[in-house]
Amino acid sequence: MKTLKVIKIGGNIIDNEAALSSFIKDFSTIEGPKVLVHGGGKLATKLANQMNVPVKMTEGRRITDAATLDIITMVYAGKINKNIVAQLEARQCNAIGFSGADGNTIISEKRPIKTIDYGFVGDVKKVNTATLEVLLNNNITPVFCAITHDENGQLLNTNADTIASELAIGLTSIFKTELYYCFEKNGVLENVENDDSVIENINTESYKTLKENNIIFEGMLPKLDNCFHAINKNVQKVCIGKSKMLFDANNKHTTITK
Amino acid sequence: MKTLKVIKIGGNIIDNEAALSSFIKDFSTIEGPKVLVHGGGKLATKLANQMNVPVKMTEGRRITDAATLDIITMVYAGKINKNIVAQLEARQCNAIGFSGADGNTIISEKRPIKTIDYGFVGDVKKVNTATLEVLLNNNITPVFCAITHDENGQLLNTNADTIASELAIGLTSIFKTELYYCFEKNGVLENVENDDSVIENINTESYKTLKENNIIFEGMLPKLDNCFHAINKNVQKVCIGKSKMLFDANNKHTTITK
Repeated sequence: MKTLKVIKIGGNIIDNEAALSSFIKDFSTIEGPKVLVHGGGKLATKLANQMNVPVKMTEGRRITDAATLDIITMVYAGKINKNIVAQLEARQCNAIGFSGADGNTIISEKRPIKTIDYGFVGDVKKVNTATLEVLLNNNITPVFCAITHDENGQLLNTNADTIASELAIGLTSIFKTELYYCFEKNGVLENVENDDSVIENINTESYKTLKENNIIFEGMLPKLDNCFHAINKNVQKVCIGKSKMLFDANNKHTTITK
Repeated sequence: MKTLKVIKIGGNIIDNEAALSSFIKDFSTIEGPKVLVHGGGKLATKLANQMNVPVKMTEGRRITDAATLDIITMVYAGKINKNIVAQLEARQCNAIGFSGADGNTIISEKRPIKTIDYGFVGDVKKVNTATLEVLLNNNITPVFCAITHDENGQLLNTNADTIASELAIGLTSIFKTELYYCFEKNGVLENVENDDSVIENINTESYKTLKENNIIFEGMLPKLDNCFHAINKNVQKVCIGKSKMLFDANNKHTTITK
């Protein structure tokens, strides 16, 4: 089995033209099959403000009414996705932009209303790998934005970290998969103020302790839950850190193990 | 060689939710390989107005500055394209949305400035069919929006009629191709006021006469030039009319012949 890398980039790279261009230059040199997943929340918020569409967030998640769904579809699948694809092509990395609707690759269901109505937000139900397998075997790199569909014609806003972990899990049927979350810090930090305080390894046991001691909290929890979900579902390697970790093994980062 | 249909739909279908839904239902029943190409100019103009970005048109073409390019990328490749793909998937038609950047399928060059600076508008230079061939042979329907790229990372706004004709021409290397332009009228009309006055056949000779007599003018000319370009480059069949012509051979329409 070949090794496939699923790499997720967030706002710190997407929102900065020079950082994105530099990342794409590096990414295009990665050998072997790879999948790129991108967010884009800040640009969506910017467009919503320009269009006077109210932005409502709950616990870091965007409440997605119909107008907001249009905005994120335009920003994620349109502006960000196509610009990344065009830049990859300019670096001779043959890429195709995807939402989960394209090729019916990621099916989700609208999140049921419990205490909060998230609107058009999807929880991933299934990843179909047949189309991705054809592309990856033809040396084409899928570039995923954070949108899925329900198979009934409805697009759904879906967390990009979750999309990355679900793709990494789904593709284990065809590849040995590795999952990399690239963000603005060197990894999970012992002290959020100190970028050198990277916790280099977190396993199920130490994660529990880190949570109990409030060393890991808030925004990191869903990301780490995605990491453990992946590592427990046959993903071979899960790492969190700056994108440098992909190209320089000595660059400190956090590795998640069982 | 199999027959492939390239079908272009315009604003009359895209801007009307019921018409689009009905078209997609019919389209998904078409057997054999097919490619869908869509415009979306009216929705782009609407978003530009909402965002206070001035809309400048010259001879029916959109002057495309950087802000306008962002808008059309968001509307065409995002909102319209992904909603069409999701609806096709709901009808069991496996589809993937494309700009010309995706899979490096359509390469264009920024239109040189002669008397008018069109901005980020592209003239098609080349269609790469390798990726499309893989998809079409795997029963996947490419859905193209009217955006191409220059292979140097720049997206370019490109006329959807032209994209349809260039795809139909490019794919003649693999398929017998047919090109269908669907719009709000029954075909090219002898009298624009009378939808029954369809000119059922136009050839190079009669086109000349129709132009000289001012029966065909203005907006129809670029569409017909695309038709003749296609029919002269090995496209087997070129038709203009309502989308009904695809499903009902008795529905009057215009056929272009050499």
